[in-house]
Amino acid sequence: MRSFASDNYSGVHPEIMDAIVQANIDHMSSYGADPVSAEAEKLFHNHFGEQALIFFLSTGTATNTLILKHLTRSWNSVICSDCAHITIDECGSCEAVAGLKLLHAATENGKISVDSIKSLLGDLGDVHRTQPAVISITQNTELGTLYSIAEIKAICDFAHEKGLHVHMDGARIANAAVALGVSLREMIVDCGVDVVSFGGTKNGCMCAEAAVFINPELGKGFEFVRKQGMQLISKMRYVGAQFKALLTDDLWKRNAAHSNCMAAKLAERAGKIPGVQLTRPVEANGVFAIIPREITAELQAAYPFYVWNPAINEVRWMTSWSTTDEDLDGFCSELERLLK
Amino acid sequence: MRSFASDNYSGVHPEIMDAIVQANIDHMSSYGADPVSAEAEKLFHNHFGEQALIFFLSTGTATNTLILKHLTRSWNSVICSDCAHITIDECGSCEAVAGLKLLHAATENGKISVDSIKSLLGDLGDVHRTQPAVISITQNTELGTLYSIAEIKAICDFAHEKGLHVHMDGARIANAAVALGVSLREMIVDCGVDVVSFGGTKNGCMCAEAAVFINPELGKGFEFVRKQGMQLISKMRYVGAQFKALLTDDLWKRNAAHSNCMAAKLAERAGKIPGVQLTRPVEANGVFAIIPREITAELQAAYPFYVWNPAINEVRWMTSWSTTDEDLDGFCSELERLLK
Amino acid sequence: MRSFASDNYSGVHPEIMDAIVQANIDHMSSYGADPVSAEAEKLFHNHFGEQALIFFLSTGTATNTLILKHLTRSWNSVICSDCAHITIDECGSCEAVAGLKLLHAATENGKISVDSIKSLLGDLGDVHRTQPAVISITQNTELGTLYSIAEIKAICDFAHEKGLHVHMDGARIANAAVALGVSLREMIVDCGVDVVSFGGTKNGCMCAEAAVFINPELGKGFEFVRKQGMQLISKMRYVGAQFKALLTDDLWKRNAAHSNCMAAKLAERAGKIPGVQLTRPVEANGVFAIIPREITAELQAAYPFYVWNPAINEVRWMTSWSTTDEDLDGFCSELERLLK
Amino acid sequence: MRSFASDNYSGVHPEIMDAIVQANIDHMSSYGADPVSAEAEKLFHNHFGEQALIFFLSTGTATNTLILKHLTRSWNSVICSDCAHITIDECGSCEAVAGLKLLHAATENGKISVDSIKSLLGDLGDVHRTQPAVISITQNTELGTLYSIAEIKAICDFAHEKGLHVHMDGARIANAAVALGVSLREMIVDCGVDVVSFGGTKNGCMCAEAAVFINPELGKGFEFVRKQGMQLISKMRYVGAQFKALLTDDLWKRNAAHSNCMAAKLAERAGKIPGVQLTRPVEANGVFAIIPREITAELQAAYPFYVWNPAINEVRWMTSWSTTDEDLDGFCSELERLLK
Repeated sequence: MRSFASDNYSGVHPEIMDAIVQANIDHMSSYGADPVSAEAEKLFHNHFGEQALIFFLSTGTATNTLILKHLTRSWNSVICSDCAHITIDECGSCEAVAGLKLLHAATENGKISVDSIKSLLGDLGDVHRTQPAVISITQNTELGTLYSIAEIKAICDFAHEKGLHVHMDGARIANAAVALGVSLREMIVDCGVDVVSFGGTKNGCMCAEAAVFINPELGKGFEFVRKQGMQLISKMRYVGAQFKALLTDDLWKRNAAHSNCMAAKLAERAGKIPGVQLTRPVEANGVFAIIPREITAELQAAYPFYVWNPAINEVRWMTSWSTTDEDLDGFCSELERLLK
Repeated sequence: MRSFASDNYSGVHPEIMDAIVQANIDHMSSYGADPVSAEAEKLFHNHFGEQALIFFLSTGTATNTLILKHLTRSWNSVICSDCAHITIDECGSCEAVAGLKLLHAATENGKISVDSIKSLLGDLGDVHRTQPAVISITQNTELGTLYSIAEIKAICDFAHEKGLHVHMDGARIANAAVALGVSLREMIVDCGVDVVSFGGTKNGCMCAEAAVFINPELGKGFEFVRKQGMQLISKMRYVGAQFKALLTDDLWKRNAAHSNCMAAKLAERAGKIPGVQLTRPVEANGVFAIIPREITAELQAAYPFYVWNPAINEVRWMTSWSTTDEDLDGFCSELERLLK
Repeated sequence: MRSFASDNYSGVHPEIMDAIVQANIDHMSSYGADPVSAEAEKLFHNHFGEQALIFFLSTGTATNTLILKHLTRSWNSVICSDCAHITIDECGSCEAVAGLKLLHAATENGKISVDSIKSLLGDLGDVHRTQPAVISITQNTELGTLYSIAEIKAICDFAHEKGLHVHMDGARIANAAVALGVSLREMIVDCGVDVVSFGGTKNGCMCAEAAVFINPELGKGFEFVRKQGMQLISKMRYVGAQFKALLTDDLWKRNAAHSNCMAAKLAERAGKIPGVQLTRPVEANGVFAIIPREITAELQAAYPFYVWNPAINEVRWMTSWSTTDEDLDGFCSELERLLK
Repeated sequence: MRSFASDNYSGVHPEIMDAIVQANIDHMSSYGADPVSAEAEKLFHNHFGEQALIFFLSTGTATNTLILKHLTRSWNSVICSDCAHITIDECGSCEAVAGLKLLHAATENGKISVDSIKSLLGDLGDVHRTQPAVISITQNTELGTLYSIAEIKAICDFAHEKGLHVHMDGARIANAAVALGVSLREMIVDCGVDVVSFGGTKNGCMCAEAAVFINPELGKGFEFVRKQGMQLISKMRYVGAQFKALLTDDLWKRNAAHSNCMAAKLAERAGKIPGVQLTRPVEANGVFAIIPREITAELQAAYPFYVWNPAINEVRWMTSWSTTDEDLDGFCSELERLLK
């Protein structure tokens, strides 16, 4: 199968698989106290600073939910966009596991702004209302768009002024940094983001996510939350190995650059085909378009993808580190054929 | 490092690693809808019947906690031994994630009995008390002992008569079946166990656990609990691949048999060394012994292991699929040397 | 103090206080097994049928939250209006105590409709999304408006067709039935509502709310949820006494009729004062109006009330069983004086 | 009915009922911002100091559960006796609402000690174990016994040395202080207790409990926990009125003294009757005895009471502010008659 359904339809990048196999020697301490995980952590510190606390987990949902749980008390709420993964696609984890209310700020192309956040802070101190404690932004967004450095900084500055923290859901964080042409440090640390869900899986790993607390004070005790949150992998060395490979020789960048490039090509080619209407700025590795409803199923049969908004038949095409030029050729040919 | 600390200090069995590497081709549907996971499920059905519902997860804590959450309403409680992993070693997951109270039945060598369970059922219907709904037993137990077929059956029969369900925490379930010389079906399905946490990780996998609902009615909706419980691995094919290998050519049996055999040898040899007092029946792959406090740290430095009961310096030595005769030789030599 | 802030600024109706005092004799069984509570339950059955299960609680928030918890599994969600008390004014109880996600249907004058509900049911069966299980409507709404009998019936029919249940938040349920000129049975049972939060407090009680399960199957086990939900009042007879009085000689109707009448009078008089712009249909005991921002504080000092929407200075004036003609005279005079 | 089942079978003390009736004038701010509640709070400050934070609630279960929730993070646990109300009689509230694990310290006559607590602190810092954060003691205990001043102080000193807090479940706190012949300040503040569940209901109130944070830092934010915990009574003035009466003219002391005295008399008289074997020190208002199983039901029919331990037919007889000499006479006569 070749597909544009999601970056997680891809397999594991060969350099990462090699690292996993290399780690398969001998006995090692479990639960993260192994040398491979230690090396991986060190590589994270290169990007996020020595002070950062790093925790490895197995799913993005867990990373988001447990971070938000850790940053809040039960009466707090979290502000996010109305298309945020945490509110739409995690089957109510934040509510069920963390007991949190999510407040939706007005959203444009997947992004929230200081203005839209402001309007949710009117009830601070009112005992009948949850008290916002965290702003969660997705970079790049669920709609394939990007917060600029200025936008991230503005949200962080505003949040800190109000006593709130900023969480970045970075399931596709590498795509974002590469697309913006900045380092992880510039996009995250320098902007003032407090905690990141750093996604490895979509960028070529097998199953590797990290909770990165740039401010270590905020991460204290998270080791208990991770264990209680059922996310303390016993043979952690294999997660460590994935991150070690991903952060070595800029593999994270190479994978993301390839993926972004494939999306740009796809958008350029598909966008020219009559009957295809691109609906969002293509800023990372996702392409959104409206196509005729009647060709959708047949196109999906050839190359699986998701219908994002059934009401208008807006579809989503994701590229990944493993998307090939042949995939693009085949897909665009099929699309053209069906639209004739 | 060579160690007797835990079966999870071991790496991944080569046949399983091969299967992982083999699965690394092409695009595949995520979240379990891939052909590799489908094959693995089929292999589970061979043991547990066509009707069984199978769900893959990444940790034993998650498998236990989410199964117990799914089998209960908030006012229910779960009966277990006072040394059960779920009550001792999961950092309060059952309480925090599932909101459950765990009731401790009187325990002998890690095992509970119909009599000890009975004494916890006095408050059925009393609105001030939680209502027991599940009996959870660990096979083999945390103390390396085994429930006999008759004991499992007795507990299941009693439970069902009272309207309760039986959960088996099978982190080392292969060791148990092999030690008892029975099939999984005989030990589980035929005894009447309702749900199993089927552990693969300790038996040679990388990160593979399964929730097996023998009674499919009980498993309905668990797909939502798994996702909300942050345990729906996106690139599931790699978990599927592990189980596929484990359940092919009886690898599960071979690994467990080796591991059990190593424990028996270790018990035999260490038990003869003056100064070593075995404290539990050695029925699977764990050996418990009291050794002099003053040699413990030095022995641990050579071969890491855990002190189980610091009060009496009872220690635990676990063997695994990867324990070698050289490991036994080296360890016993060191032990003898230190005890001279 | 005299006030239009909320119906809960009022005291206890004399007939209810008398009933409380009358109940203060002798010893009685606690936790609801007393004859006074039994009599009160019987009076509820007159309205809701013999089959209905009745549970007394002490706050509306508890009644709503615990009912919704009881009707759902953790992966379910509840559909409500975006101004519903459960989502706005209960400090995240549904999320924190019941672990529920609330989905907001598009809302007009506080009411949701079958159409707006429909658009939230697109993800049934999708494991990444919570699964709606209950529709919760507030009658009369937080904006003082009413669902008609036809509207309630339409929502119930649609819900049942889709396998969902209907909950009615009836904090002011007496006001609604009286305003519609129908019996409780006609407005609730005959329309198909499954469960009601029946409010006594705002209608003249001290502290008396009831969870009424019209369909008794749905209420099974709620006695445990109430106790675990910290709402099992030990000296329940005093709650029973309140409901006994409220449901005797149609006191619930008399109080509601008075309250509604006072709101109608207030709307009529205030609506004629230049500078006052009524903003909502006045259908029960709440009046919403935009008044000049600069007179608000002074008017509140004389007669406390809440600003509902600070953005446009929309204010809310609530009447109650205890609102007097003198209150209206005084308030309107002050309003006129300030607006001159 | 006259009964020795529980202090909560009693009605409301006339002085308290009068205060409730007196409060029934005019409009007052809801949710506790009323002058009656303010007066009651002031009376609490007389006992617990100006700095103490006071919150009124409606049930003891809520007061205990929400305090413990507020003092902990999800990975913490609470140490209590194995007969503590919080672990036995609250239907799993602590687990379900607060997500807490309760650890049982070894118990003698209902009391835990520094030694028994110590043995539960062996796993501090171990990520697989919950981390004890609070010690909860019941004063007087569920078995009618008392912690001495020295015992309370020893537990508090030890707790604070280890970084833990001390909670006192004071459902019968007045009985305890009176029995010890000390002030509330001496028994609580001076001993170092951090937070108290101050019970009014069993001592003559209708429905009045208070969370008293002696250390105000610990109480910060509890107003949100109370609201979210569904315990913010809207017409709070009636709870305030109860406490105002209870703390005026030492009514709390008078009620408790009477109740304790009645228990002492009962123990003295019943203890002399052949066939009655007192089983616990009678230190407050509870009498525990073993009586012949065959007379139990008939005695309960005349004067309801509970069988505490069915295994040995140990029964519990509670006295209250409303127990009369006639009650004692009648009960003892019946007991004698049945035992002849």
